[in-house]
Amino acid sequence: MQKLRVESFAVSVDGFGAGPNQSLQNPLGVGGGNLHQWFFPTKTFQQNVLGKSDGTTGIDNEIAENGFKNIGAWILGRNMFSPYRGSHNVDWKGWWGDNPPYHVPTFILTNHKRESIEMEGGTTFHFVTGGINAALEKAFDSANGKDVRLGGGVNTIRQYLMAQLIDELHLVVSPVILGSGENLFMNLDLTSLGYKCVKHISSDKAIHLVIKKSINT
Amino acid sequence: MQKLRVESFAVSVDGFGAGPNQSLQNPLGVGGGNLHQWFFPTKTFQQNVLGKSDGTTGIDNEIAENGFKNIGAWILGRNMFSPYRGSHNVDWKGWWGDNPPYHVPTFILTNHKRESIEMEGGTTFHFVTGGINAALEKAFDSANGKDVRLGGGVNTIRQYLMAQLIDELHLVVSPVILGSGENLFMNLDLTSLGYKCVKHISSDKAIHLVIKKSINT
Repeated sequence: MQKLRVESFAVSVDGFGAGPNQSLQNPLGVGGGNLHQWFFPTKTFQQNVLGKSDGTTGIDNEIAENGFKNIGAWILGRNMFSPYRGSHNVDWKGWWGDNPPYHVPTFILTNHKRESIEMEGGTTFHFVTGGINAALEKAFDSANGKDVRLGGGVNTIRQYLMAQLIDELHLVVSPVILGSGENLFMNLDLTSLGYKCVKHISSDKAIHLVIKKSINT
Repeated sequence: MQKLRVESFAVSVDGFGAGPNQSLQNPLGVGGGNLHQWFFPTKTFQQNVLGKSDGTTGIDNEIAENGFKNIGAWILGRNMFSPYRGSHNVDWKGWWGDNPPYHVPTFILTNHKRESIEMEGGTTFHFVTGGINAALEKAFDSANGKDVRLGGGVNTIRQYLMAQLIDELHLVVSPVILGSGENLFMNLDLTSLGYKCVKHISSDKAIHLVIKKSINT
Protein backbone atom coordinates (compact mmCIF):
# COMPACT_ATOMS: atom_id res chain seq x y z
CA MET A 1 0.00 0.00 0.00
CA GLN A 2 1.33 3.41 -0.95
CA LYS A 3 1.44 5.86 1.94
CA LEU A 4 1.25 9.60 2.25
CA ARG A 5 4.07 10.57 4.62
CA VAL A 6 5.16 13.77 6.30
CA GLU A 7 8.81 13.52 7.29
CA SER A 8 11.19 15.62 9.36
CA PHE A 9 8.62 18.33 9.94
CA ALA A 10 9.81 20.56 12.76
CA VAL A 11 7.63 22.52 15.14
CA SER A 12 8.43 24.77 18.08
CA VAL A 13 7.38 23.90 21.62
CA ASP A 14 4.46 26.30 21.19
CA GLY A 15 3.35 24.56 17.99
CA PHE A 16 4.63 26.73 15.17
CA GLY A 17 5.93 25.09 11.99
CA ALA A 18 7.15 28.38 10.52
CA GLY A 19 7.79 31.85 11.84
CA PRO A 20 5.69 34.88 10.91
CA ASN A 21 6.21 37.06 7.78
CA GLN A 22 7.58 34.58 5.27
CA SER A 23 9.44 36.40 2.48
CA LEU A 24 12.24 36.07 -0.03
CA GLN A 25 14.65 37.00 2.79
CA ASN A 26 12.96 34.75 5.37
CA PRO A 27 11.68 31.69 3.51
CA LEU A 28 10.94 29.96 6.83
CA GLY A 29 9.42 33.05 8.43
CA VAL A 30 11.16 35.17 11.04
CA GLY A 31 12.96 32.86 13.48
CA GLY A 32 11.80 29.80 11.53
CA GLY A 33 15.37 28.68 10.83
CA ASN A 34 15.74 27.90 14.54
CA LEU A 35 13.33 25.00 14.08
CA HIS A 36 15.82 23.18 11.89
CA GLN A 37 19.03 23.28 13.93
CA TRP A 38 18.72 19.50 14.36
CA PHE A 39 18.66 19.10 10.55
CA PHE A 40 21.07 21.63 9.05
CA PRO A 41 24.28 19.97 10.30
CA THR A 42 23.27 16.45 9.15
CA LYS A 43 24.95 14.65 6.29
CA THR A 44 21.51 14.32 4.67
CA PHE A 45 20.94 18.07 4.56
CA GLN A 46 24.54 18.92 3.71
CA GLN A 47 24.66 16.42 0.84
CA ASN A 48 21.09 16.32 -0.53
CA VAL A 49 20.29 19.99 -0.21
CA LEU A 50 23.62 21.83 -0.27
CA GLY A 51 25.57 19.35 -2.39
CA LYS A 52 28.44 19.24 0.11
CA SER A 53 30.34 16.13 1.10
CA ASP A 54 30.44 16.43 4.89
CA GLY A 55 27.79 16.51 7.64
CA THR A 56 26.96 14.75 10.91
CA THR A 57 25.79 11.18 11.32
CA GLY A 58 23.80 9.82 14.28
CA ILE A 59 20.12 9.86 15.27
CA ASP A 60 19.17 13.13 13.60
CA ASN A 61 20.82 12.17 10.34
CA GLU A 62 19.34 8.68 10.35
CA ILE A 63 15.87 10.10 10.74
CA ALA A 64 16.41 12.76 8.09
CA GLU A 65 17.75 10.09 5.74
CA ASN A 66 14.77 7.78 6.29
CA GLY A 67 12.51 10.59 5.18
CA PHE A 68 13.94 10.34 1.68
CA LYS A 69 13.63 6.56 1.37
CA ASN A 70 11.02 4.95 -0.88
CA ILE A 71 9.60 8.30 -2.00
CA GLY A 72 8.20 8.33 -5.55
CA ALA A 73 6.65 11.79 -5.58
CA TRP A 74 6.34 14.92 -3.43
CA ILE A 75 3.53 17.35 -2.72
CA LEU A 76 4.30 20.92 -1.65
CA GLY A 77 2.09 23.85 -0.76
CA ARG A 78 2.58 26.82 -3.03
CA ASN A 79 4.18 28.88 -0.24
CA MET A 80 6.89 26.27 0.16
CA PHE A 81 7.71 26.62 -3.50
CA SER A 82 7.68 30.39 -3.74
CA PRO A 83 7.64 33.63 -1.74
CA TYR A 84 5.23 35.11 -4.30
CA ARG A 85 1.46 35.13 -3.84
CA GLY A 86 -1.26 35.42 -6.48
CA SER A 87 -0.30 34.84 -10.13
CA HIS A 88 2.96 33.01 -10.72
CA ASN A 89 6.21 34.80 -11.42
CA VAL A 90 7.31 32.50 -14.25
CA ASP A 91 10.97 33.31 -13.71
CA TRP A 92 10.74 31.69 -10.27
CA LYS A 93 11.69 28.00 -10.26
CA GLY A 94 11.83 27.33 -6.52
CA TRP A 95 14.39 28.01 -3.81
CA TRP A 96 16.71 25.18 -4.75
CA GLY A 97 18.54 26.12 -7.94
CA ASP A 98 18.66 24.07 -11.16
CA ASN A 99 18.87 20.69 -9.42
CA PRO A 100 16.29 20.59 -6.58
CA PRO A 101 16.59 17.94 -3.85
CA TYR A 102 13.43 16.07 -4.91
CA HIS A 103 14.52 14.07 -7.99
CA VAL A 104 10.95 12.85 -8.62
CA PRO A 105 7.67 14.40 -9.80
CA THR A 106 6.75 17.18 -7.36
CA PHE A 107 3.22 18.52 -7.22
CA ILE A 108 2.66 22.11 -6.14
CA LEU A 109 -0.78 23.01 -4.78
CA THR A 110 -1.85 26.38 -6.15
CA ASN A 111 -4.90 28.32 -7.22
CA HIS A 112 -3.09 29.61 -10.32
CA LYS A 113 -2.36 27.52 -13.39
CA ARG A 114 1.19 27.18 -14.62
CA GLU A 115 2.99 24.88 -17.08
CA SER A 116 5.09 22.07 -15.62
CA ILE A 117 8.82 22.77 -15.25
CA GLU A 118 11.38 20.07 -15.88
CA MET A 119 14.44 20.63 -13.71
CA GLU A 120 17.81 18.86 -13.63
CA GLY A 121 18.23 15.65 -11.64
CA GLY A 122 14.77 14.16 -12.16
CA THR A 123 12.59 16.80 -10.46
CA THR A 124 9.60 18.00 -12.45
CA PHE A 125 7.36 20.62 -10.86
CA HIS A 126 3.69 20.15 -11.70
CA PHE A 127 1.14 22.77 -10.67
CA VAL A 128 -2.18 21.38 -9.44
CA THR A 129 -5.21 23.64 -9.16
CA GLY A 130 -7.74 20.91 -8.30
CA GLY A 131 -7.11 20.77 -4.56
CA ILE A 132 -5.54 18.30 -2.15
CA ASN A 133 -7.34 15.17 -3.35
CA ALA A 134 -6.44 15.80 -6.98
CA ALA A 135 -2.81 16.41 -6.05
CA LEU A 136 -2.64 13.23 -3.99
CA GLU A 137 -4.15 11.14 -6.77
CA LYS A 138 -1.68 12.49 -9.31
CA ALA A 139 1.20 11.97 -6.92
CA PHE A 140 0.27 8.37 -6.15
CA ASP A 141 -0.18 7.68 -9.88
CA SER A 142 3.25 9.01 -10.76
CA ALA A 143 5.13 7.50 -7.79
CA ASN A 144 5.77 4.07 -9.35
CA GLY A 145 4.23 2.30 -6.36
CA LYS A 146 6.38 4.18 -3.88
CA ASP A 147 5.18 6.49 -1.11
CA VAL A 148 4.36 10.17 -1.50
CA ARG A 149 6.03 12.70 0.77
CA LEU A 150 4.14 15.82 1.77
CA GLY A 151 6.72 18.52 2.37
CA GLY A 152 4.51 21.21 3.91
CA GLY A 153 3.97 23.93 4.79
CA VAL A 154 1.78 24.12 7.85
CA ASN A 155 -1.44 25.05 6.09
CA THR A 156 -1.06 22.22 3.57
CA ILE A 157 -0.33 19.64 6.25
CA ARG A 158 -3.34 20.84 8.24
CA GLN A 159 -5.59 20.39 5.21
CA TYR A 160 -4.37 16.82 4.66
CA LEU A 161 -4.66 16.01 8.39
CA MET A 162 -8.24 17.31 8.57
CA ALA A 163 -9.06 15.11 5.58
CA GLN A 164 -7.36 12.19 7.41
CA LEU A 165 -5.24 11.54 4.33
CA ILE A 166 -1.83 11.42 6.03
CA ASP A 167 -0.77 7.90 6.97
CA GLU A 168 2.40 8.74 8.82
CA LEU A 169 3.61 12.01 10.29
CA HIS A 170 7.13 12.39 11.60
CA LEU A 171 7.29 15.50 13.76
CA VAL A 172 10.36 17.01 15.35
CA VAL A 173 9.85 19.20 18.39
CA SER A 174 12.72 21.68 18.53
CA PRO A 175 13.58 23.34 21.83
CA VAL A 176 12.48 26.74 20.61
CA ILE A 177 9.68 29.19 21.43
CA LEU A 178 8.48 31.13 18.38
CA GLY A 179 5.50 32.99 19.90
CA SER A 180 3.82 33.54 16.54
CA GLY A 181 3.82 32.17 13.02
CA GLU A 182 2.00 29.25 11.46
CA ASN A 183 0.54 26.99 14.12
CA LEU A 184 0.19 23.34 13.21
CA PHE A 185 -2.16 22.32 16.02
CA MET A 186 -4.55 25.25 16.46
CA ASN A 187 -8.11 23.87 16.71
CA LEU A 188 -6.98 20.54 15.30
CA ASP A 189 -7.96 17.58 17.46
CA LEU A 190 -5.49 14.99 16.22
CA THR A 191 -6.80 12.36 18.63
CA SER A 192 -10.33 12.59 17.25
CA LEU A 193 -8.89 12.45 13.75
CA GLY A 194 -7.34 9.09 14.65
CA TYR A 195 -3.69 10.12 15.09
CA LYS A 196 -1.50 8.72 17.82
CA CYS A 197 2.19 8.91 18.69
CA VAL A 198 3.51 5.37 18.28
CA LYS A 199 7.23 5.97 18.73
CA HIS A 200 9.64 8.61 19.90
CA ILE A 201 13.40 9.06 19.78
CA SER A 202 15.33 11.77 21.61
CA SER A 203 18.47 13.29 20.19
CA ASP A 204 20.50 15.94 21.96
CA LYS A 205 18.97 18.59 19.68
CA ALA A 206 15.28 17.63 19.55
CA ILE A 207 12.67 14.98 20.19
CA HIS A 208 11.39 12.99 17.20
CA LEU A 209 7.89 11.54 17.08
CA VAL A 210 6.29 9.07 14.73
CA ILE A 211 2.55 9.69 14.58
CA LYS A 212 0.29 7.26 12.75
CA LYS A 213 -3.32 7.18 11.75
CA SER A 214 -4.57 4.50 14.08
CA ILE A 215 -8.20 4.14 13.06
CA ASN A 216 -9.95 3.85 9.76
CA THR A 217 -12.70 6.40 9.43
CA MET B 1 16.17 38.10 44.29
CA GLN B 2 13.27 35.76 44.94
CA LYS B 3 11.92 34.12 41.78
CA LEU B 4 8.58 32.77 40.72
CA ARG B 5 9.33 29.40 39.14
CA VAL B 6 7.28 26.83 37.27
CA GLU B 7 9.01 23.46 37.44
CA SER B 8 8.49 20.08 35.79
CA PHE B 9 5.36 21.22 33.98
CA ALA B 10 4.57 18.71 31.26
CA VAL B 11 2.76 19.42 28.00
CA SER B 12 1.85 17.24 25.05
CA VAL B 13 3.29 17.85 21.59
CA ASP B 14 0.03 19.60 20.71
CA GLY B 15 0.34 21.90 23.72
CA PHE B 16 -2.01 20.44 26.32
CA GLY B 17 -1.02 20.53 29.99
CA ALA B 18 -3.99 18.45 31.08
CA GLY B 19 -6.53 16.24 29.38
CA PRO B 20 -10.22 17.13 29.06
CA ASN B 21 -12.88 16.41 31.72
CA GLN B 22 -10.93 16.65 34.96
CA SER B 23 -12.74 14.81 37.76
CA LEU B 24 -12.22 12.91 40.99
CA GLN B 25 -11.45 9.84 38.87
CA ASN B 26 -9.27 11.75 36.39
CA PRO B 27 -7.44 14.47 38.33
CA LEU B 28 -5.20 15.16 35.33
CA GLY B 29 -8.04 14.99 32.80
CA VAL B 30 -8.62 12.07 30.45
CA GLY B 31 -5.26 10.90 29.12
CA GLY B 32 -3.43 13.52 31.21
CA GLY B 33 -1.45 10.89 33.10
CA ASN B 34 0.44 10.14 29.88
CA LEU B 35 2.12 13.53 30.18
CA HIS B 36 3.95 12.44 33.31
CA GLN B 37 5.51 9.13 32.28
CA TRP B 38 8.93 10.79 32.52
CA PHE B 39 8.18 11.77 36.16
CA PHE B 40 6.27 8.88 37.77
CA PRO B 41 9.19 6.42 37.84
CA THR B 42 11.69 8.92 39.30
CA LYS B 43 13.05 8.68 42.81
CA THR B 44 11.75 12.23 43.41
CA PHE B 45 8.15 11.28 42.63
CA GLN B 46 8.33 7.89 44.32
CA GLN B 47 9.81 9.34 47.52
CA ASN B 48 8.33 12.85 47.78
CA VAL B 49 4.85 12.05 46.55
CA LEU B 50 4.28 8.35 47.22
CA GLY B 51 6.56 7.99 50.25
CA LYS B 52 8.32 4.96 48.73
CA SER B 53 12.02 4.30 48.96
CA ASP B 54 12.87 3.34 45.36
CA GLY B 55 12.71 5.15 42.01
CA THR B 56 14.95 5.93 39.06
CA THR B 57 17.88 8.31 39.00
CA GLY B 58 19.29 10.04 35.91
CA ILE B 59 18.32 13.13 33.93
CA ASP B 60 14.58 13.03 34.59
CA ASN B 61 15.07 12.59 38.31
CA GLU B 62 17.71 15.27 38.53
CA ILE B 63 15.39 17.77 36.90
CA ALA B 64 12.43 16.76 39.04
CA GLU B 65 14.61 17.07 42.14
CA ASN B 66 15.87 20.55 41.19
CA GLY B 67 12.27 21.68 41.04
CA PHE B 68 11.96 21.19 44.80
CA LYS B 69 15.18 23.01 45.69
CA ASN B 70 15.13 26.45 47.37
CA ILE B 71 11.32 26.62 47.37
CA GLY B 72 9.81 28.55 50.30
CA ALA B 73 6.18 28.61 49.22
CA TRP B 74 3.87 27.22 46.53
CA ILE B 75 0.96 28.65 44.58
CA LEU B 76 -1.68 26.35 43.11
CA GLY B 77 -4.80 27.00 41.08
CA ARG B 78 -7.95 25.83 42.79
CA ASN B 79 -8.50 23.04 40.24
CA MET B 80 -5.13 21.57 41.13
CA PHE B 81 -6.22 21.42 44.75
CA SER B 82 -9.68 20.00 44.25
CA PRO B 83 -12.04 18.37 41.74
CA TYR B 84 -14.91 20.46 43.16
CA ARG B 85 -16.05 23.72 41.64
CA GLY B 86 -17.96 26.56 43.28
CA SER B 87 -18.15 26.67 47.09
CA HIS B 88 -15.59 24.55 48.93
CA ASN B 89 -16.31 21.07 50.18
CA VAL B 90 -14.67 21.55 53.58
CA ASP B 91 -14.04 17.82 53.99
CA TRP B 92 -11.67 18.00 51.00
CA LYS B 93 -8.05 18.62 51.96
CA GLY B 94 -6.33 18.01 48.63
CA TRP B 95 -5.34 14.90 46.70
CA TRP B 96 -2.28 14.14 48.78
CA GLY B 97 -3.42 12.73 52.14
CA ASP B 98 -2.46 14.09 55.57
CA ASN B 99 1.14 14.89 54.64
CA PRO B 100 1.19 16.68 51.25
CA PRO B 101 4.45 16.91 49.27
CA TYR B 102 4.79 20.70 49.72
CA HIS B 103 6.08 21.12 53.31
CA VAL B 104 5.81 24.94 53.10
CA PRO B 105 2.97 27.48 52.97
CA THR B 106 0.87 26.74 49.89
CA PHE B 107 -1.47 29.36 48.49
CA ILE B 108 -4.59 28.24 46.63
CA LEU B 109 -6.14 30.69 44.17
CA THR B 110 -9.91 30.60 44.52
CA ASN B 111 -13.00 32.79 44.27
CA HIS B 112 -14.43 31.27 47.46
CA LYS B 113 -13.20 32.04 50.97
CA ARG B 114 -12.04 29.23 53.20
CA GLU B 115 -10.08 28.99 56.45
CA SER B 116 -6.43 27.92 56.21
CA ILE B 117 -5.71 24.23 56.81
CA GLU B 118 -2.60 23.12 58.62
CA MET B 119 -1.48 19.72 57.37
CA GLU B 120 1.24 17.38 58.62
CA GLY B 121 4.84 17.88 57.50
CA GLY B 122 4.85 21.67 57.28
CA THR B 123 2.27 22.26 54.55
CA THR B 124 -0.37 24.87 55.32
CA PHE B 125 -3.02 25.54 52.69
CA HIS B 126 -4.06 29.18 52.51
CA PHE B 127 -6.96 30.22 50.29
CA VAL B 128 -6.48 33.51 48.45
CA THR B 129 -9.44 35.30 46.89
CA GLY B 130 -7.59 38.46 45.88
CA GLY B 131 -6.18 37.23 42.56
CA ILE B 132 -2.75 36.30 41.23
CA ASN B 133 -0.87 39.39 42.43
CA ALA B 134 -2.17 39.04 45.99
CA ALA B 135 -1.25 35.36 46.05
CA LEU B 136 2.24 36.07 44.77
CA GLU B 137 2.85 38.79 47.33
CA LYS B 138 1.73 36.54 50.19
CA ALA B 139 3.82 33.68 48.86
CA PHE B 140 6.99 35.79 48.55
CA ASP B 141 6.39 37.18 52.05
CA SER B 142 6.09 33.77 53.62
CA ALA B 143 8.90 32.09 51.67
CA ASN B 144 11.75 33.19 53.95
CA GLY B 145 13.67 34.66 51.04
CA LYS B 146 13.44 31.49 49.00
CA ASP B 147 11.72 31.13 45.62
CA VAL B 148 8.05 30.48 45.03
CA ARG B 149 6.96 27.55 42.91
CA LEU B 150 3.82 27.82 40.83
CA GLY B 151 2.41 24.30 40.50
CA GLY B 152 -0.30 24.93 37.90
CA GLY B 153 -2.68 24.18 36.41
CA VAL B 154 -2.71 25.46 32.87
CA ASN B 155 -5.11 28.33 33.42
CA THR B 156 -3.17 29.61 36.43
CA ILE B 157 0.16 29.44 34.61
CA ARG B 158 -1.35 31.28 31.65
CA GLN B 159 -2.55 34.08 33.94
CA TYR B 160 0.90 34.50 35.47
CA LEU B 161 2.59 34.35 32.04
CA MET B 162 0.29 36.99 30.60
CA ALA B 163 1.15 39.20 33.58
CA GLN B 164 4.87 38.48 32.92
CA LEU B 165 5.28 37.43 36.54
CA ILE B 166 7.00 34.07 35.95
CA ASP B 167 10.79 34.33 36.04
CA GLU B 168 11.62 30.78 35.06
CA LEU B 169 9.50 28.13 33.41
CA HIS B 170 10.69 24.56 33.14
CA LEU B 171 8.57 22.76 30.56
CA VAL B 172 8.69 19.10 29.65
CA VAL B 173 7.42 18.09 26.24
CA SER B 174 6.18 14.52 26.47
CA PRO B 175 5.90 12.45 23.29
CA VAL B 176 2.13 12.33 23.47
CA ILE B 177 -0.75 13.71 21.42
CA LEU B 178 -3.79 14.63 23.56
CA GLY B 179 -6.01 16.27 20.92
CA SER B 180 -8.02 18.22 23.48
CA GLY B 181 -7.81 19.44 27.05
CA GLU B 182 -6.22 22.54 28.54
CA ASN B 183 -3.91 24.22 26.08
CA LEU B 184 -1.00 26.15 27.54
CA PHE B 185 -0.06 28.11 24.41
CA MET B 186 -3.37 29.03 22.74
CA ASN B 187 -3.25 32.72 21.76
CA LEU B 188 -0.28 33.29 24.04
CA ASP B 189 2.68 34.93 22.31
CA LEU B 190 5.48 33.96 24.68
CA THR B 191 8.09 35.70 22.55
CA SER B 192 6.32 39.06 22.78
CA LEU B 193 5.91 38.49 26.51
CA GLY B 194 9.71 38.24 26.75
CA TYR B 195 10.14 34.49 27.19
CA LYS B 196 12.91 32.54 25.53
CA CYS B 197 14.20 28.98 25.74
CA VAL B 198 17.72 29.26 27.17
CA LYS B 199 18.55 25.60 27.72
CA HIS B 200 17.30 22.15 26.81
CA ILE B 201 18.09 18.64 27.90
CA SER B 202 16.83 15.47 26.23
CA SER B 203 16.10 12.32 28.17
CA ASP B 204 14.89 9.11 26.60
CA LYS B 205 11.35 9.90 27.76
CA ALA B 206 10.95 13.62 27.02
CA ILE B 207 12.64 16.89 26.18
CA HIS B 208 13.17 19.39 28.98
CA LEU B 209 13.27 23.14 28.38
CA VAL B 210 14.29 26.01 30.59
CA ILE B 211 12.45 29.15 29.53
CA LYS B 212 13.36 32.50 31.05
CA LYS B 213 11.94 35.98 30.97
CA SER B 214 14.59 37.70 28.95
CA ILE B 215 13.42 41.31 28.87
CA ASN B 216 12.09 43.65 31.48
CA THR B 217 8.82 45.18 30.46
